Amino acid sequence: MSEKLGEFQRIAKYFKPLAAGFAGAFGLGDDAAAFEIPSTHELVATTDAMVEGVHFLRADGPQSIARRLLRSNLSDLAAMGADPHGYLLVTSLPNDIGEDWLETFARALGDDQKTYGGHLIGGDSVRTDGPITLSLTALGLVPKGQLMRRKTRQKVGSQPLSLYVTGTIGDAALGLMLSQGRKFAGLTAEEESYLKQRHFTPEPRLNISKAIRGFAKACIDISDGLVADIGHIAEQSSAQVILHAGDVPLSKCAQKLVKSNPDLWEVLLTGGEDYELAFAIEAQEESLLTIVGSKVNVPLTKIGTLQLGTAGDVQVLDQESRVIPLKQRGWVHF
Amino acid sequence: MSEKLGEFQRIAKYFKPLAAGFAGAFGLGDDAAAFEIPSTHELVATTDAMVEGVHFLRADGPQSIARRLLRSNLSDLAAMGADPHGYLLVTSLPNDIGEDWLETFARALGDDQKTYGGHLIGGDSVRTDGPITLSLTALGLVPKGQLMRRKTRQKVGSQPLSLYVTGTIGDAALGLMLSQGRKFAGLTAEEESYLKQRHFTPEPRLNISKAIRGFAKACIDISDGLVADIGHIAEQSSAQVILHAGDVPLSKCAQKLVKSNPDLWEVLLTGGEDYELAFAIEAQEESLLTIVGSKVNVPLTKIGTLQLGTAGDVQVLDQESRVIPLKQRGWVHF
Repeated sequence: MSEKLGEFQRIAKYFKPLAAGFAGAFGLGDDAAAFEIPSTHELVATTDAMVEGVHFLRADGPQSIARRLLRSNLSDLAAMGADPHGYLLVTSLPNDIGEDWLETFARALGDDQKTYGGHLIGGDSVRTDGPITLSLTALGLVPKGQLMRRKTRQKVGSQPLSLYVTGTIGDAALGLMLSQGRKFAGLTAEEESYLKQRHFTPEPRLNISKAIRGFAKACIDISDGLVADIGHIAEQSSAQVILHAGDVPLSKCAQKLVKSNPDLWEVLLTGGEDYELAFAIEAQEESLLTIVGSKVNVPLTKIGTLQLGTAGDVQVLDQESRVIPLKQRGWVHF
Repeated sequence: MSEKLGEFQRIAKYFKPLAAGFAGAFGLGDDAAAFEIPSTHELVATTDAMVEGVHFLRADGPQSIARRLLRSNLSDLAAMGADPHGYLLVTSLPNDIGEDWLETFARALGDDQKTYGGHLIGGDSVRTDGPITLSLTALGLVPKGQLMRRKTRQKVGSQPLSLYVTGTIGDAALGLMLSQGRKFAGLTAEEESYLKQRHFTPEPRLNISKAIRGFAKACIDISDGLVADIGHIAEQSSAQVILHAGDVPLSKCAQKLVKSNPDLWEVLLTGGEDYELAFAIEAQEESLLTIVGSKVNVPLTKIGTLQLGTAGDVQVLDQESRVIPLKQRGWVHF
């Protein structure tokens, strides 16, 4: 009984406040949440899990763990063009996870709710004898007709689509290497901290998603790695991607590192968890995108084309248009 | 790469077929599922998790584990009056879980989809160095105005509501005790197998939910134990429950056991995971319920009343209307 009460008390103390303001969550006091979906919108649903020792270390701390859990799901919503609405959280926690940990974890979720929108609407808290295991199901809303998918809205025709990415690519992979103890000569403490923060505190591109969902033809978020993820677009769209490696936007830190360590190029192109968006638009919509770009504080960069060709193929070209062979497309988790 | 490909291949082989027939699941090949909700319905969302060693043993086998995972969630939908629509599945599996296990697990989910409705619409498959950890988020649809909650639709007035349960109570708790090695004299092999099956293969009461949601005033599924769960109704409805212990419906096996082991009474009243429904109706609707009862193959039994009184209080009375003191209300998980 004491354990069961403990669970109820924990939910009441840390999680119930995250449901405040969402009537259909019933204060987490019912068997399920229930709510209407406006007839102008479609529901979007996604789920992502994280396991201690596989996706994060306990030393990362509850704030970073909470953010990465929620934001990786919000990034999936962004990829589809959906606005965050509600989420359900499952925590499987070992007995030695205390109140402090939970309090910080819940506060980080609450802060993100304020930033990105959405409420906690349900969940389950269970005990485990194993590693911390977390899963989150995010529900979002997208205006009808504005859903973005990996698959282009229409078949790719003779006119190639322009392929864009948000932000900069590869920082998260470098941040992960740094956090795992890899040393790079010539990196300032500030640069090191920037790269780590890109790994530990990703930014779901919800604002950009909202701005492009009216006209983008396909979209994905970069979680497996740039080449792997644009490969998913190519595959689902039965088309080919030409990627100009030299056009891939890199942060100043990444530029600096790749200059002295050319082998890092492959890490940047295939490293995961940037949570930037890659999307395809028609060439004549590039002027529209310029307007979007001027309103968001994130660069939008053309990196290649999506065009007729071998379905699922990704050709990575260097400055002289020679094919760069890659050992692998995506990121191997640990 | 090989591990990542392995994950994609497993999803394609075992889980993608479970998404067939649900267009908005996109064959599990997109960042999220997306679909419209009919404007005549509300969405209902719930999530439940299970951890090896806490909620099940590996020896229970993938069929039972899959069923209990899915059905405990469907039972939450039933409690709210919702029909299954889609679900998202997270599997955190150790490396020694092989293809056979996954195949049986997925087949059990597929069989249940056929029986109860709904499709797999999304998920995540991750590796763990710990115990098998599973979570499932179920999405259901309820006709507007027919949502059932723990809280009565209107405040409980001077006219007590009648409190009913479906099926028989306590079998699952006895089945669990048997599966943990407890021996009871005089139980046939058939009776033992019946009780175990009640624990390992619960039946979500979706048909009854559908039949009563038009008029029931409050509802809950019995997962924590009868007394605890009707206590939740009492608490949420700011009312008191009078439970006539002698009226609680017991299976023939349970009757036999409690006759020779009177101490089992408390186990039956407080044991969890029966996944029956407890619900309150107005006295004048009892004739309507008789019609429902004649159409479902499950007994519907009046066990007490929900009435004005101390909020959240549950009075358990014996045949002579004396209060039976209980050591605890609900079931302690392991």
